Amino acid sequence: MSSGPIEGNAVIGQSGGPTAVINASLAGVVEGLQSVGAIKKILGMHHGVRGLTQDNLVDLSDMGSATLDALCKTPSAALGSTRDKPDMDYCKRIFESCRKHDIRYFFYCGGNDSSDACRIVNEVSNNAGYELRCFHVPKTVDNDLVMNDHTPGFPSAARFVAKALMADSADNASLPGIKVNIIMGRHAGFLTAASALARNDAGDGPHLIYMPEVDFDLERFVQDVADVYDKLGRCQIAVSEGIQDKDGQSIGAMLIQGETDAHGNVQLSGSGALGDQLANVLKAKLTATGGKPPRVRADTLGYMQRCYPDQSPVDVREARGAGRYAAEIAAQGDIDGSIAIVRTNDSPYESGYKRIELSDVAAKTKHMDPSYIKGTNDVSDAFLDYVRPLVGELPTFAKI
Amino acid sequence: MSSGPIEGNAVIGQSGGPTAVINASLAGVVEGLQSVGAIKKILGMHHGVRGLTQDNLVDLSDMGSATLDALCKTPSAALGSTRDKPDMDYCKRIFESCRKHDIRYFFYCGGNDSSDACRIVNEVSNNAGYELRCFHVPKTVDNDLVMNDHTPGFPSAARFVAKALMADSADNASLPGIKVNIIMGRHAGFLTAASALARNDAGDGPHLIYMPEVDFDLERFVQDVADVYDKLGRCQIAVSEGIQDKDGQSIGAMLIQGETDAHGNVQLSGSGALGDQLANVLKAKLTATGGKPPRVRADTLGYMQRCYPDQSPVDVREARGAGRYAAEIAAQGDIDGSIAIVRTNDSPYESGYKRIELSDVAAKTKHMDPSYIKGTNDVSDAFLDYVRPLVGELPTFAKI
Repeated sequence: MSSGPIEGNAVIGQSGGPTAVINASLAGVVEGLQSVGAIKKILGMHHGVRGLTQDNLVDLSDMGSATLDALCKTPSAALGSTRDKPDMDYCKRIFESCRKHDIRYFFYCGGNDSSDACRIVNEVSNNAGYELRCFHVPKTVDNDLVMNDHTPGFPSAARFVAKALMADSADNASLPGIKVNIIMGRHAGFLTAASALARNDAGDGPHLIYMPEVDFDLERFVQDVADVYDKLGRCQIAVSEGIQDKDGQSIGAMLIQGETDAHGNVQLSGSGALGDQLANVLKAKLTATGGKPPRVRADTLGYMQRCYPDQSPVDVREARGAGRYAAEIAAQGDIDGSIAIVRTNDSPYESGYKRIELSDVAAKTKHMDPSYIKGTNDVSDAFLDYVRPLVGELPTFAKI
Repeated sequence: MSSGPIEGNAVIGQSGGPTAVINASLAGVVEGLQSVGAIKKILGMHHGVRGLTQDNLVDLSDMGSATLDALCKTPSAALGSTRDKPDMDYCKRIFESCRKHDIRYFFYCGGNDSSDACRIVNEVSNNAGYELRCFHVPKTVDNDLVMNDHTPGFPSAARFVAKALMADSADNASLPGIKVNIIMGRHAGFLTAASALARNDAGDGPHLIYMPEVDFDLERFVQDVADVYDKLGRCQIAVSEGIQDKDGQSIGAMLIQGETDAHGNVQLSGSGALGDQLANVLKAKLTATGGKPPRVRADTLGYMQRCYPDQSPVDVREARGAGRYAAEIAAQGDIDGSIAIVRTNDSPYESGYKRIELSDVAAKTKHMDPSYIKGTNDVSDAFLDYVRPLVGELPTFAKI
C-alpha cells in the first residue's frame, strides 16, 4: 500500500439513470484531480464501463473552469451512461483496459450497482498486484444508498416532485377530482415521500402517500381515497412506482404485463400503465358504490423527475463536493472506497463527506426508516425535518 | 349605449383548464377595476359561472397589491374553475344572478368555450335591456384562439415543454433509445411544436414532431422513427395528444378506449395510454424488422405542462396586462368584447392589446399556420421565430 499520489492516468465514468447533478460530481472529480501533479491524463469513459472496455475515452485533463461550472448546471450524464451491470468477467476486462491505458485512478459515479462494479474491479486489481485506486461517487434519485444521509441527485428530484405536486394540488383544487401521481423509486419511498413538501395549508395535497415500505392493499387504497373524496370533494394521491403487496409482489407488475429489463425487473418508468390501472380501479369501484362517477386522472411524473433543469442548490454543492473529496483522498494513498454524505448539523443544515468501504454500500438498498412513515399512507414530521433543508426554497402560492 | 363607467358591481370568473398565469389575468382585472369609482364591489365567482348561479361569490374589492403580486406568481385558478359549458338556459340563469347582485361588469377568463358563454350572456342581457358589460379575457395553453397572436398561458406551458424536452434529450443521449413524449393540445399543435425550442446543437432532440395539423399515418411514423434510430442510435419524439389520421379520426381514440367528457371527447390528458400504445407499436414493428428490440419509453407530460411553477416573464406581464386592459375598456362605455394580444414588433419583441368582437373568437379554433410546419414531422424556422421571444430565457447545457 503506497501513500501519496501515484504516477499514472485517471478515468471517470457515469452509470445508471442520469440525475440533475451527476455532472456536478464529474466536475468535482475533474477539478480535484487537476491539482494532482502525478496524474498525467484525466480520461472520461463514454457510456460508462462499456466505453472503457471499448477504448471509447475522452481526454478531460484541460477542462477549464467555465466548462466545469457549465457542467454543474447541466442535467443528465454528459459522458453518457450505461445500464451494464458488470460481472467478474466484465470487471476483468475493465481492469485490463485500465492497465492498458496506464490508469491508476478509477472513479465511477452511480448507484449501488456501480459501487458493486467498483468493488469487483478493486478486487481484480488487488489480486493482480496492480495498484488501482477505485472510488465510487454516489448518485441516485432514489436515495437508497446505505450509510449516506442522502445521495446526490435525490434533493433535485425531490425539489421537482414537491413543486410538481404543489402545482398539481392547486390544479386539483381548481377542478376538483381524484388525481393519481406516480413517482419514481423502485424499492425506496423517499422521492414519493418528498411530495409531502407540497403541503402548506390545511387541505393542500397530497392527501395520501403510498411508499414501497408499506404493504399496499388495493381495497384499503380505494377506501382511503373514498374517505378523502367524501370529506374534501377531491383527492390528490402520490404513489411510488415501487408499491408492493404484503407478499412483496409488485403492484405494477400485477396490474400491468410489462417488459422486463436485463435484471428481470418489470419496466415501471417510461410508461403510464400503473397510474392508468389505479385510475381505472378507482373509477370502477367508486362508481359501483353509488353516485356519479368521479373525475379520476393519472399522471406519471416520468423522466422529468431526474432531469428537469431546476436543481436544488444544496444538491449541486454536495454533488460537486463529493466528487472533489473522492479525488482528494484518492491522491492521498492507495485507499479505495465510496463517498458518503454526512449531515453535520440540523439547523442550520450543514453537511460533510466521509469515506466508507465499497463493500458497505455495494449492492445494498436503504429503505425509509419506520420513524419517517406515519400510518399506512403518510409521512412523519421527522421525515419533513429530514428532507426540507435539502430541496432549496420552494414557491408559496396565494390562496383566495 | 352609455359611455363612461356605470354604477354597479363587477364579477370575474375563471373557466376551463388552469394555466400558470390565469391568476395574473385575475389580478389584472381586479387592479384595473379598483380605480373605477362607479364600481362598488368586485366579486369573484367560485368555480366559474357555476359559482355565480349558486351565489358562491367572494368579495375581492379590497385585495391589496401584495396579494395581487402574489397571485401573479401562483399557477392554477385561485378562484376555482369549471368545465361547465353554458347553453342558452344556463346563460339566462347567469344573467339572472347578475341582475340579482347588481352586477354591471362581467369578466370571464378562459378559452373559446368561455368566450362563447360571454357572447350568449351578452345577448341575453341585451335582449332584456339590462346594461351588462361582458368581457372575455383569453387563456389557454393550447394557443388556439383566433385573432390572437398568442394566448396567455401558452408561453409558460411552451417554456415547460421546451425545458422538459431539452433535459429529456440529454437523458436520451445519455442512455440511448427511443423516447415518445406526449404533449397537450387536442386540436392545435402549438405546444407540441414548441418542443423544437429544446434544440441547440446538431443531434439534439426532438428529432420528430407530430402535430394534429398534419395527417398522422402509423406506418410512416414507424418508418420515420426507424430512420432516425438507424442514423443516430436514438430518437426523441414529440407527439401531440391530438394527432389524427387523414379522415380526422383521433389516433388516441383509435388506440385507446377511453372515457368521454361532457362534450363527447375521449379523455386524452390525465392518462398515459396514447404514449404507451405508440411505444408498443414501435417495439413490435421495430423488433419485427430484425435485430435486438430497441429500448422504447414513453412519458406523457401531463398536467405539469399547464401548472408547473416556472412562468415565462412575458406571459405573466401579458396575462396581467390583458386583464387590466379589459377592466379599462369596460369602464369606458357599454362595449363588450374579447381581448386579443397583438405583436407590435418582432425584434425586440413588443406586444399590445386590442378589443375584438366576442363572436369573432367564440367557439372557433386556431390551428398552426401551414408556414409553421416543415414536411410531415417538423416545424419551420418561421415558427421558431414566432415562439422564441415568448418563453423567456432557456438554460444552455454543456456538452462533452
